[in-house]
Amino acid sequence: MLKVPEHQVAGRQAIDGKLGPLIDNSGHFYKPLQDDDERGTRELTFYHSFSSNTRIPHHIRRFFPVFHGTQLLKASDGSGLRPHLVLQDITSDHLNPSILDIKIGSRTWYLEASNDYIQNCFHRDKTTTTVSLGFRICGLQIYNESGFWKPGRKLVRNFTADDVRSVLRKFVSSNVGPEPDCCFADSVYGGCDGILERLLELKTWFEDQTMYHFRSCSVLLLFDKESFLRGKTPFAEVKLIDFAHVVDGNGVIDHNFLGGLCSFIKFVSQVLADSKGSTMEDKF
Amino acid sequence: MLKVPEHQVAGRQAIDGKLGPLIDNSGHFYKPLQDDDERGTRELTFYHSFSSNTRIPHHIRRFFPVFHGTQLLKASDGSGLRPHLVLQDITSDHLNPSILDIKIGSRTWYLEASNDYIQNCFHRDKTTTTVSLGFRICGLQIYNESGFWKPGRKLVRNFTADDVRSVLRKFVSSNVGPEPDCCFADSVYGGCDGILERLLELKTWFEDQTMYHFRSCSVLLLFDKESFLRGKTPFAEVKLIDFAHVVDGNGVIDHNFLGGLCSFIKFVSQVLADSKGSTMEDKF
Repeated sequence: MLKVPEHQVAGRQAIDGKLGPLIDNSGHFYKPLQDDDERGTRELTFYHSFSSNTRIPHHIRRFFPVFHGTQLLKASDGSGLRPHLVLQDITSDHLNPSILDIKIGSRTWYLEASNDYIQNCFHRDKTTTTVSLGFRICGLQIYNESGFWKPGRKLVRNFTADDVRSVLRKFVSSNVGPEPDCCFADSVYGGCDGILERLLELKTWFEDQTMYHFRSCSVLLLFDKESFLRGKTPFAEVKLIDFAHVVDGNGVIDHNFLGGLCSFIKFVSQVLADSKGSTMEDKF
Repeated sequence: MLKVPEHQVAGRQAIDGKLGPLIDNSGHFYKPLQDDDERGTRELTFYHSFSSNTRIPHHIRRFFPVFHGTQLLKASDGSGLRPHLVLQDITSDHLNPSILDIKIGSRTWYLEASNDYIQNCFHRDKTTTTVSLGFRICGLQIYNESGFWKPGRKLVRNFTADDVRSVLRKFVSSNVGPEPDCCFADSVYGGCDGILERLLELKTWFEDQTMYHFRSCSVLLLFDKESFLRGKTPFAEVKLIDFAHVVDGNGVIDHNFLGGLCSFIKFVSQVLADSKGSTMEDKF
């Protein structure tokens, strides 16, 4: 029984007869390979290379969805059988996950791409926070008492630096109103199991690895309030997704991803520090 | 007695009746303010802001040339009196300095610049190692028995990743031929007074500081074989120069500079590691 993913916050969706990913009830995510461009092939090549690469440390492999090969499936757009990547559905363990999808890097294009692709990316990068912040939020959903807050694509695309700060506060708050309480900041962003620690682990790897350049790749932050309240581990996760534009590192570190990641880490650190500051103010 | 700097490896030079910097015999470097664009004003604004900024740690201030204000001087192009920045001449303590000028960042343009400027930079960045490596060598001179090896601008502009590796090896060798011996690598790049340690200090600051974005700024590596042989400290230095395109950080880290710096650090580390490897091979 395949169905449309409930918690997809960005990317092409399998709705209105369009081609998009599907999930099943046993924790699999099926991503269709497209035949109109090289993306699908590139992503498949990456998963094959990465899953057999013995130089990937175990603690780094955890950041990536598990790859189960490919499978021929009926495509969501009714076009018949089509090969799909079979991946781990990283939301399947979570009941009501709050999710942030952040595309990392101050540049989404790469020298190997076509001129049209470069020009499109260049324009999009300049008119979003990609150039200024080194990353942009591509999609999100934040769970609260009244359900999910899931702003539309156009709104997300126009996010400013202040909007990004506000979203990072709302992500760890019990409310999504104009004054988020950041009551989960310490547990979700802080501590040795927190998101900040995971991001720093990732940073250390990116300072060293020269195998892959992750162009247009996203960091996904997942946080599940109910798992947290039930004491489940992990209640917060960091995953990397979208490898359709991964290119060979050629012995150079991915300075574009690393720079953007460091900028994002600084944003998260600031929200964490501010939330500690305000807790202190509340106390005294 | 003003004269043309002997050890300038990049930038506009005060030769053939052109406007360029001058030096004196007491360790000052005079950089003319230009009236045809905003660069001079921007650089002066930066030096004023930086020299009075109490949030700059002492160990970071050492990376910047000392600023002594401005002075009206006869310009090198014969156009009469013109204001000049009065800076520390960072080569004055060195007899025969080997110098590398490395423009850091995978992007030299910035959103505040004119469209023409952005397009020019964008083209230059793609056709040099700026985009691929996150930095480019802008100029160099390497001292050896037969004098200075100082390749022309056109040659330097066409440097590939392999050329960069080769230059980093020659910089710390007694010879500049096709098989550099890297005999100074350990002392110049390694150790607690070495260049790598300085670059890592700089990196730590860039992971945190959100005051300035250093667009089109260079890291200058200086190394003086004679100072080294005489046991003089420091015989190797790291300096930042060229602040005509520094813009406000607006609370965001300079992820562009940081990413490029990390990539450059990796290149230097690799040369250091390889030289240790080859020394081991020589020994056994």
